[in-house]
Amino acid sequence: MKIAIAGSGAMGSRFGFMLHQAGNDVILIDKWDAHIKAIQENGLTVNYNGTEKVINIPIYRPDEVKEKVDVIFMFTKAMFLGSMLEEIQPIIKEDTQVVCLLNGIGHETVMKQYVSLENMLIGVTIWTAGLTGPGKIELEGTGSTEIQNFKPGGEEKAKEIVKILKDAGLNGIYSEDVKFSIWRKACVNGALNATCTLLDATLGEMFETDQAISITKNIVNEFVQVAEKQEVQLDFEDTVEYIIKTSHELGHHYPSMHQDLMQHNRLTEIDYINGAVARLAEEYGLKAPTNALITELIHAKEQILNAK
Amino acid sequence: MKIAIAGSGAMGSRFGFMLHQAGNDVILIDKWDAHIKAIQENGLTVNYNGTEKVINIPIYRPDEVKEKVDVIFMFTKAMFLGSMLEEIQPIIKEDTQVVCLLNGIGHETVMKQYVSLENMLIGVTIWTAGLTGPGKIELEGTGSTEIQNFKPGGEEKAKEIVKILKDAGLNGIYSEDVKFSIWRKACVNGALNATCTLLDATLGEMFETDQAISITKNIVNEFVQVAEKQEVQLDFEDTVEYIIKTSHELGHHYPSMHQDLMQHNRLTEIDYINGAVARLAEEYGLKAPTNALITELIHAKEQILNAK
Repeated sequence: MKIAIAGSGAMGSRFGFMLHQAGNDVILIDKWDAHIKAIQENGLTVNYNGTEKVINIPIYRPDEVKEKVDVIFMFTKAMFLGSMLEEIQPIIKEDTQVVCLLNGIGHETVMKQYVSLENMLIGVTIWTAGLTGPGKIELEGTGSTEIQNFKPGGEEKAKEIVKILKDAGLNGIYSEDVKFSIWRKACVNGALNATCTLLDATLGEMFETDQAISITKNIVNEFVQVAEKQEVQLDFEDTVEYIIKTSHELGHHYPSMHQDLMQHNRLTEIDYINGAVARLAEEYGLKAPTNALITELIHAKEQILNAK
Repeated sequence: MKIAIAGSGAMGSRFGFMLHQAGNDVILIDKWDAHIKAIQENGLTVNYNGTEKVINIPIYRPDEVKEKVDVIFMFTKAMFLGSMLEEIQPIIKEDTQVVCLLNGIGHETVMKQYVSLENMLIGVTIWTAGLTGPGKIELEGTGSTEIQNFKPGGEEKAKEIVKILKDAGLNGIYSEDVKFSIWRKACVNGALNATCTLLDATLGEMFETDQAISITKNIVNEFVQVAEKQEVQLDFEDTVEYIIKTSHELGHHYPSMHQDLMQHNRLTEIDYINGAVARLAEEYGLKAPTNALITELIHAKEQILNAK
């Protein structure tokens, strides 16, 4: 199976590595020059549950890649999804399956502009991955990856991709309702990412404050209302409880948005998490002032820090 | 005239200094040991528009002061108003006038518990003052101080105090509607203080972001609605314009809340600014989600920084 990973940061590289190890013909695609150079010269260095491995795997810039592929896993940052799909048009065949595994909500709208509905799959993964430098990743723990065809009738092809993921140890699961899982993950991120970023705090520090539960409830409540309009039934109490549990389990972690903005001075995915809820609420005539303010504060912080 | 300054930080010391220079018998009251010791040993050192002066002026801890006074100017941080009034009960005579010049909203409720309505005055000052170390203040620029009797019938006494302020160069103004001025100042602080603190930004940095106007409008809108319930007519457009103008004039300044929390690790007055609006909105059955979230984020930040 010829597979492309579009966006080969930490998580993309994990998928690339594991799919390659399972015997697939994998190519990586990325835009970070130092990362590309390191992999081209020295291979991809993977610390896999404590053991270091180096694999030779092709990596290209999006405007250089020409080989047609059977499956593409999209792993860009949310704001770069459209430009990536635009640039990699040459590798998409009539039946190339494109699997969107980005964080956040609402990527279908962008995907549809570049991929036929029959070939579109959406999903969510709870694997973790760390990039420790150009060409170097660190993988530990376990996870799973739920996917589903976007259009009814595509179950068979979706299940083929689930098998590929299973065979590579990526614990693929065919989901009958992947939208629920996507919204639930987005809601968890929506409650934890931006608040810890604004407060410059770990999950544990944030959740030790007297205000954490109240802030979380206000955020989740708006997610639940908007999700309902999208025919996704997020349970308020369950979700709040799940977020609190997550904050305990990952207490000493800074969430990825904090890493992006506060540590690496990069733009965040806020428009696809809290910002998506604020925007959809407005479309539906609902109110989402908490998510709207959080989104504006994060964008203001991006500008103050001159994030790129 | 025997005058006490209850809370002799930067602004209290300015009033104490200027009232003393005008020939009044002034005593300072404060709780900061190093500040008290410095003033008792070396006097109060004042850099007054570039010229250094040292004055000998008595300073006491609140539990030490016994001399009855004619007028007390309250200049504590908002959260210490009640405890200060409790401790200085021995200096209050039957006709001692107590003038509340604290930042923020809702101090009447606390004042009433310790001062008879006939002797209560409220006001607002736009002078500035800086504390450069224990016993040392820096004063520049100009300002004014509006005051009004709390209870109808107290105009005459209020005007006597206005005259004392005028004679001391503090530009006293008798106000027919001091509540408007208090709300307007609180709204300006509400729009600028907490946001710049959360974003760790100067007023200029905050107002250069694309989000500043929208965030400001959401904050001001909630202030306007709550003020109306208190029979204070804050004009939305005027107030927003005034805030933008202020942000330009003081572009390179960090607001006082930023200084308190981010620079000196002190608790903030948020409960008397944005927090007061959130609380009053709830009492009136209105919604103030923007001010509520801002208040919660600031309190969370206080706890994360272990502010005292």
